[in-house]
Amino acid sequence: MTAAEATRATVGELAVRTRRFIRDVVVPSEPPAGMELGPERRRALQEEARAAGVFAPQVPTALGGLGLTLPEWSPVFQEAGYSPIGPAVLNCMAPDEGNMYLLERVASPAQQQAFLAPVAAGEARSCFAMTEPHPGAGSDPAALATVARRVDGGWVLDGEKRFISGADEAAYAIVMARTPELGDGAATMLLVPMDTPGVTVGHPVRTMETAITGGHPHVTFADVRVGDDAVLGAAGEGFAYAQVRLGPARLTHCMRWLGLARRAQDTALDRVRTREVFGAPLAELGIAQAMLADSEIDLATCDALIDRAARLLVEDPRAGATASSIAKVHVSEAVGRVIDRAVQLCGGDGVTLELPLLAFLNEVRPFRVYDGSSETHRWAIARRAVARRRREVEAGERVLDTPEGAR
Amino acid sequence: MTAAEATRATVGELAVRTRRFIRDVVVPSEPPAGMELGPERRRALQEEARAAGVFAPQVPTALGGLGLTLPEWSPVFQEAGYSPIGPAVLNCMAPDEGNMYLLERVASPAQQQAFLAPVAAGEARSCFAMTEPHPGAGSDPAALATVARRVDGGWVLDGEKRFISGADEAAYAIVMARTPELGDGAATMLLVPMDTPGVTVGHPVRTMETAITGGHPHVTFADVRVGDDAVLGAAGEGFAYAQVRLGPARLTHCMRWLGLARRAQDTALDRVRTREVFGAPLAELGIAQAMLADSEIDLATCDALIDRAARLLVEDPRAGATASSIAKVHVSEAVGRVIDRAVQLCGGDGVTLELPLLAFLNEVRPFRVYDGSSETHRWAIARRAVARRRREVEAGERVLDTPEGAR
Amino acid sequence: MTAAEATRATVGELAVRTRRFIRDVVVPSEPPAGMELGPERRRALQEEARAAGVFAPQVPTALGGLGLTLPEWSPVFQEAGYSPIGPAVLNCMAPDEGNMYLLERVASPAQQQAFLAPVAAGEARSCFAMTEPHPGAGSDPAALATVARRVDGGWVLDGEKRFISGADEAAYAIVMARTPELGDGAATMLLVPMDTPGVTVGHPVRTMETAITGGHPHVTFADVRVGDDAVLGAAGEGFAYAQVRLGPARLTHCMRWLGLARRAQDTALDRVRTREVFGAPLAELGIAQAMLADSEIDLATCDALIDRAARLLVEDPRAGATASSIAKVHVSEAVGRVIDRAVQLCGGDGVTLELPLLAFLNEVRPFRVYDGSSETHRWAIARRAVARRRREVEAGERVLDTPEGAR
Amino acid sequence: MTAAEATRATVGELAVRTRRFIRDVVVPSEPPAGMELGPERRRALQEEARAAGVFAPQVPTALGGLGLTLPEWSPVFQEAGYSPIGPAVLNCMAPDEGNMYLLERVASPAQQQAFLAPVAAGEARSCFAMTEPHPGAGSDPAALATVARRVDGGWVLDGEKRFISGADEAAYAIVMARTPELGDGAATMLLVPMDTPGVTVGHPVRTMETAITGGHPHVTFADVRVGDDAVLGAAGEGFAYAQVRLGPARLTHCMRWLGLARRAQDTALDRVRTREVFGAPLAELGIAQAMLADSEIDLATCDALIDRAARLLVEDPRAGATASSIAKVHVSEAVGRVIDRAVQLCGGDGVTLELPLLAFLNEVRPFRVYDGSSETHRWAIARRAVARRRREVEAGERVLDTPEGAR
Repeated sequence: MTAAEATRATVGELAVRTRRFIRDVVVPSEPPAGMELGPERRRALQEEARAAGVFAPQVPTALGGLGLTLPEWSPVFQEAGYSPIGPAVLNCMAPDEGNMYLLERVASPAQQQAFLAPVAAGEARSCFAMTEPHPGAGSDPAALATVARRVDGGWVLDGEKRFISGADEAAYAIVMARTPELGDGAATMLLVPMDTPGVTVGHPVRTMETAITGGHPHVTFADVRVGDDAVLGAAGEGFAYAQVRLGPARLTHCMRWLGLARRAQDTALDRVRTREVFGAPLAELGIAQAMLADSEIDLATCDALIDRAARLLVEDPRAGATASSIAKVHVSEAVGRVIDRAVQLCGGDGVTLELPLLAFLNEVRPFRVYDGSSETHRWAIARRAVARRRREVEAGERVLDTPEGAR
Repeated sequence: MTAAEATRATVGELAVRTRRFIRDVVVPSEPPAGMELGPERRRALQEEARAAGVFAPQVPTALGGLGLTLPEWSPVFQEAGYSPIGPAVLNCMAPDEGNMYLLERVASPAQQQAFLAPVAAGEARSCFAMTEPHPGAGSDPAALATVARRVDGGWVLDGEKRFISGADEAAYAIVMARTPELGDGAATMLLVPMDTPGVTVGHPVRTMETAITGGHPHVTFADVRVGDDAVLGAAGEGFAYAQVRLGPARLTHCMRWLGLARRAQDTALDRVRTREVFGAPLAELGIAQAMLADSEIDLATCDALIDRAARLLVEDPRAGATASSIAKVHVSEAVGRVIDRAVQLCGGDGVTLELPLLAFLNEVRPFRVYDGSSETHRWAIARRAVARRRREVEAGERVLDTPEGAR
Repeated sequence: MTAAEATRATVGELAVRTRRFIRDVVVPSEPPAGMELGPERRRALQEEARAAGVFAPQVPTALGGLGLTLPEWSPVFQEAGYSPIGPAVLNCMAPDEGNMYLLERVASPAQQQAFLAPVAAGEARSCFAMTEPHPGAGSDPAALATVARRVDGGWVLDGEKRFISGADEAAYAIVMARTPELGDGAATMLLVPMDTPGVTVGHPVRTMETAITGGHPHVTFADVRVGDDAVLGAAGEGFAYAQVRLGPARLTHCMRWLGLARRAQDTALDRVRTREVFGAPLAELGIAQAMLADSEIDLATCDALIDRAARLLVEDPRAGATASSIAKVHVSEAVGRVIDRAVQLCGGDGVTLELPLLAFLNEVRPFRVYDGSSETHRWAIARRAVARRRREVEAGERVLDTPEGAR
Repeated sequence: MTAAEATRATVGELAVRTRRFIRDVVVPSEPPAGMELGPERRRALQEEARAAGVFAPQVPTALGGLGLTLPEWSPVFQEAGYSPIGPAVLNCMAPDEGNMYLLERVASPAQQQAFLAPVAAGEARSCFAMTEPHPGAGSDPAALATVARRVDGGWVLDGEKRFISGADEAAYAIVMARTPELGDGAATMLLVPMDTPGVTVGHPVRTMETAITGGHPHVTFADVRVGDDAVLGAAGEGFAYAQVRLGPARLTHCMRWLGLARRAQDTALDRVRTREVFGAPLAELGIAQAMLADSEIDLATCDALIDRAARLLVEDPRAGATASSIAKVHVSEAVGRVIDRAVQLCGGDGVTLELPLLAFLNEVRPFRVYDGSSETHRWAIARRAVARRRREVEAGERVLDTPEGAR
């Protein structure tokens, strides 16, 4: 058995173990559809996950996790996502998962000790404070309005952030701020404990999702003073770090929501297996079959795109960024389609909360907006395609759109 | 001015008056997104509607309404539907609106006095008890399991109904029951006050809609005794009456939800008018424009289909039934698309409850299931098309699918 | 019987008569799939059409036609379009039909005598020379590059046109030219016989359509001298006249292609009626039913949109222009979907030329580009929607996209 | 460098070499859009391919090919498919490519010598005679009507086949026949030279594709006598062999047509790069960008699905069959979408034969029907999904569609 085979076996075993834990322990513990899992119940389930050997699959073993590498995450994260509360229970949910990924790569040893370790252990939570109210950094990170100014021995931070998921429960925020003193377009990430004077968690924003606990409130930073040790990694590297976090973070959303879409498809399969559909199975089963097949195709394309993007993110980060962008658009839309078809196939139960499908539909809907809207990604994907082709033609490729009459 | 022109003028004026009432009075009175309008607030607004001359547009003038005929309803109902609470305020919401339509056509004068008049006046509410738990009358009305048996001077009713919208607030139910003593496939509609002994309103079914108030609970009928005067119209005509109610009822849902889709589109237009979209308007406005145009096209096709179906329901009920079936499928799906695009165009605000769009999306989702699922309708539409073509070929039309090589 | 009812009866009768003529005479005379109907055969069939009382349904009775008004055309044109050669046989095909419509409205009596009458009688054909090679007047008419300059007693015309459908057989062209001496943005239409010195019909452009006979060649105008009587209607009114022609012209394409889509659907219905579909009818009929139903819905929405646009073009030209633009986008795409589904349902025969369906698919494909591409129309539709909403808000309507947190 | 890395390098180099040969030599040699490449010109180009070291990439080196294994084919076949004549020039076109794959695996050494070697060398062509006229083996292979009966020293074959691609140029056919003497459902493949008495190539079926040369005629077998050595592999294994050929054969179609879709996308990219699109680039580029991005996403999902299916076909044939079925449906539909968008983006040139895009669209359309129609595959995909879930539930998985009210 080669080393690679050994790893695969391990991943496969962990996926199976996770599958059993999620289905046997977590699914029966889910709150009613559309309701949140409280922090206490979450911590209790996290203890069970730890005991079952499935806690923190993506966290380095040195930090108590199971040490999977990015290209190995997908099957395990999909199993976790089979329950909307699964990723939180396994400590692989946004925003903590992405924050840990980032801290592991760019934080100093002291920062890892202080900020990464407690989150990895499930003892603390974190948030990521980048998005701002219009016209600040929304879809366009370059519009960043929050500013950190150099003062003696540290920085003073001012600005307003919004949709800061998890802020209500977080111990600290990773705050993205312009640092104009380091250059015109420079930005820096700062590690800011939520109890620092001047940090205010604002009014809660009502949403229809529950999987990311801790709310999505505004957070304001008014004359917040932090020391030099609050600078995550190197000052001025904020935008580069944002990219480090972003590609994998949006891909792990894909993995988790794909798991939830599989749950919806299984629910629909259970329904069509055991019931007449639409009252007239022989005549109409075909319509249901077409819907089920479309969902199978959607699930398969999502899975293949995620695997490719995860591999490329490691092998060729630039190609990986494009691949994860494509995966993000496709998966965010496909999981919605799969769940919507399941809702439809379950009829009356589907469109109430008698089944959790409608809640799942609301859970995934925002993913077409956060981490870059489908439209922003399409814009970027098209621009990259045009640029790629321009380079090819400039390198000598024949121009293809010349009409026959003009040749 | 001909009589027809006079009517049109009246409809046009009423649509304008309704528009102003809904936008100036009702919209500012809406509860927060996703919340219900309580009965008291509804009654207060109904009084305002009456004072403004917009109450009960479809109710006969003899019953205090504004007397519009079916082909005239659409513009007014669309204006009402611009607010999710508008139709309830104007007393043209399901299930009362469809019940009134039915009672007006088939109830005896005494029944109209006792059951229709109070609902028309907004003093009472009603419900329609047809749908049953699986394997009873769901998508397939023929599977009706509730039974009414003849007893001396009346009937004894037994059965279970589900998704009985409005039952929590209703004064009475129109109950669909098999009456096997009148023939094998015979069914009869019975008018049953909710306080009749043996009537039990069951556990509430949690939903994500709020526009139809009064819940969607189960209702059970256990040994419920009613007199002969409880028979709506003629005994044994239940299925025929169901058709009388169904065609217009699903079309009025189309009208109301189309109004809500227009509200969503207007919200999106306000957003793109005043904001940069996706942070880079010049480069990306086109994607937004394509979405807005697709919504305009959806709104226009819905409107045209509804008008045609409403006209046909009066001129040629058989053709009208097909037309309203086609309109139902198209409109129920199109309004979802329009609102979904608006959600997307409003970005972060769209996918939270900061705007009501996500609540609107949940409001219309069940319409693809109730009043006949999209799949059931597609099945029926296809069967009618095949039958139509069979008749044509049998009447001498040339068969068209003969391959050239076989001619 | 009122006058309106009398007209409707007439239209209904003419539609039935046209239906019989097309199905009994024209369809059996069709050339093999993908081949052209030659001019001689066309003229012979036109004589039969005249004898059958179905020739030139839209032409004024004074010119030998049947005198239908625009809102009455659709059912008759759809019957004509049931055969790809039907409209040419009935003399209601592009570009002649649109040219006749225009000449009837803006030409002088002498011009009507010289140019309109022979085309109306089927004795001559015409073409419409507006589109130019890039970067001239393509999707953007304002880029018009062809110029007519004032000379003593007439005009000298220079320029190049492309995709001039029917030019190979045409007796004259209606040429759109800039006339800068009449003002900066002024354009004028000129009636130019094809045998005028300086007119050259260029190389044929190979296409995959055959319904519009006479090719789609380039036509160049080099120092072409015409008299003042060549000015169609009034000089400087070119763009206004283009609008007069455009709205109805694109709508009649919708009518004709909708007829062809009905033919495709009937072909599919014949196939599914008489054959096992996909080898296992019981199990799979539902997939076919869903496809058939989607086509029925497409046909119904097209029909309803066309009727509405035709009515509005007469009642309210501005609203009619928007409605015909929406109809154009929807119909051009929907007819392609309907034919494509029929191709698929006919399997092996569908994807060869054993059946004409694949040829029909190629016939309608260009309609998504000519008369304004889907994208150009979507752009215009969105802009009109934004402008409409802006006016409403400026007139006092409440802005709808204010987030709850900002109220 | 590990052996695996060495192979990958080789594949990568071959893909690059193929890319250059196709673009520099083959594309400039293409016949006009929609026309066929004649056999002579094909043979000349094949010689050039051989000289360039790109001929027969998938053929074993022992037979003069380049020896790539199935999971390595995709990048090379995509490069070949960038030209519609590329695969024929490289000898990796259907039906020969699939026939070679099959013969390599199941033919006896003598058969390989006689039948495989000349095709591998490009000296002969072959055809695959399975499909039959209705109601024989069409979408449903089990309906096989052609029969081979045992006679002394051989077999007598009778039956009719249709859509036998390449039959006009083929030296022999692999004929699928029922052999009832070997068991009820038994079938056998026979190698039948086309000049065997009793073999008749029927009337040509007109199509709109040109990439598979040699026509798609009917072939009849009337009292055709062949020896025992005509039995391909083992008698009675016909259906098993059909599966051996089918999975990879439909996947190589995916690879080739994906290459053609890339060509279409590059053509569109050249157009939007150098021209104003729709006349108003600033305002409308976004619509074009959305279309380009959708095509990039389609290309990426196709590529990922093909890679996965190719790998699985080797690792786990059963899972591979499902994966290639899913890939077939998705790719056959996606390549049509990509080419259609390119047609649209190229406007007037796109919808004529000034550019080859419309011919490409006709080239790929039949792929949604042959090798199993989209509907047949969807039916099978859904059935497999239902069966998979049934097994899971039977093995103890919790049933998911139980309504909350029933728990």
